[in-house]
Amino acid sequence: MTLSKNKEKFIKSLRLKKFRQKYNNFIVEGDKMARELLGQKPELVIAVFALEEWLSRVEEAADVAAEKLFPVSGAALRRISGLDTPNQVLVVSSIPNTVIAAGQVENSLSLYLDGIQDPGNFGAILRIADWFGIGCVFTSAGCVDPYNPKVVQASMGSLLRVACAEASLEALHREYPALPVYGAVLDGENIFKAGLDKAKGIIVIGNEGRGLSPEAERFLSHRISIPRAAQSRAESLNAAIAAGILCAVFTNMH
Amino acid sequence: MTLSKNKEKFIKSLRLKKFRQKYNNFIVEGDKMARELLGQKPELVIAVFALEEWLSRVEEAADVAAEKLFPVSGAALRRISGLDTPNQVLVVSSIPNTVIAAGQVENSLSLYLDGIQDPGNFGAILRIADWFGIGCVFTSAGCVDPYNPKVVQASMGSLLRVACAEASLEALHREYPALPVYGAVLDGENIFKAGLDKAKGIIVIGNEGRGLSPEAERFLSHRISIPRAAQSRAESLNAAIAAGILCAVFTNMH
Repeated sequence: MTLSKNKEKFIKSLRLKKFRQKYNNFIVEGDKMARELLGQKPELVIAVFALEEWLSRVEEAADVAAEKLFPVSGAALRRISGLDTPNQVLVVSSIPNTVIAAGQVENSLSLYLDGIQDPGNFGAILRIADWFGIGCVFTSAGCVDPYNPKVVQASMGSLLRVACAEASLEALHREYPALPVYGAVLDGENIFKAGLDKAKGIIVIGNEGRGLSPEAERFLSHRISIPRAAQSRAESLNAAIAAGILCAVFTNMH
Repeated sequence: MTLSKNKEKFIKSLRLKKFRQKYNNFIVEGDKMARELLGQKPELVIAVFALEEWLSRVEEAADVAAEKLFPVSGAALRRISGLDTPNQVLVVSSIPNTVIAAGQVENSLSLYLDGIQDPGNFGAILRIADWFGIGCVFTSAGCVDPYNPKVVQASMGSLLRVACAEASLEALHREYPALPVYGAVLDGENIFKAGLDKAKGIIVIGNEGRGLSPEAERFLSHRISIPRAAQSRAESLNAAIAAGILCAVFTNMH
């Protein structure tokens, strides 16, 4: 079938946050993530635009109501795709409701992203959370949108398994006043030595350029540090790299 | 002054590896990295193209021979820049000779990049090496070029402080037969538990999509693993994130 101009326009509009919010929809592209979405969260699927061949081959497509499946040509996929190399399938999905289980934040580790701007970093951080079993990733108002197509792509499916919610650190502190709040600073306690309670708390990851905001520093209960070699003249680590190291150490050394 | 068409063409040609190799030159852009280069490795500087204002303000420019300094307009910088948001300065630099001190590889930790393709990952890995005091980053023939402008940018100056050299793992193994070679695999030894000699050896980082190549796996003396949460369905970590965690643990837990 051919795609109507209106459908094409609607799909492309979802590259912008404004329209994702208006329609509560976002785009999932590529064989692997599309299959994960169809298999694990079929209730979210609004419409699947795929090559005829993909629709008839892929098991997960068989369970989707026929009226949601739209066979399209490779040329049509190239027109609607946001990828440099368009794939066999593009899914329009509802944005899932964020579900945080009772007691989850109080009793486990969460991440707080303080103005993360780079979609690749955000996606990598979602993979980190997913890998180390960290269920909640909170974001400040200044973060890139988790449903930005580049974040979705870089998360390699982890976005579907980790709860993302926008919140201020102030509101989190009000709700969980006893919860430790960790942030990496240059002169903090060495995470490999500190006798910290690493089983629960919020780990704050600062912005790529400026690090932790003064606002975020105000809510830290523990100033921690990833030790740097004595002779090193490096000024910082990439924000996602720091997140990876902190999550690895916190979930494995306590 | 205005830039001649020939100079412009030459500068732009350095975006391609072929021409970087032909001329043994590469491009450094931006205030911070340009100042580091001028201050720390003035002998590498071939030519500095910068706003008049930058040249008169920046201390490090005062030590560069006048015939290497070219004041240019913002419009000219925009034409020659490879950045989306061109900066005040662009330096043409010689590619430094890789210097590896005698005994360095045998007695310390090095990284080996097995087909790293993403310039952002390569740059982040150079920052990791620099931060943790790892002096050598070896690369397989299939890696993106360290002097690719996007790698240079993402390394935030670390490229100037870490030795990069292309080598096969086979050649390294022949030269250092007793040196441990570590590689992360899904079923390897937990790095937080293993009683490994972490003070020296080569840590191999696999390609973004396919992980370690069979060729690289053949040379591993130790199969190690970054532990994943029991319930996690994540398939992998980003290559640079894995490198960050391995380097942090190896340099801090032995």
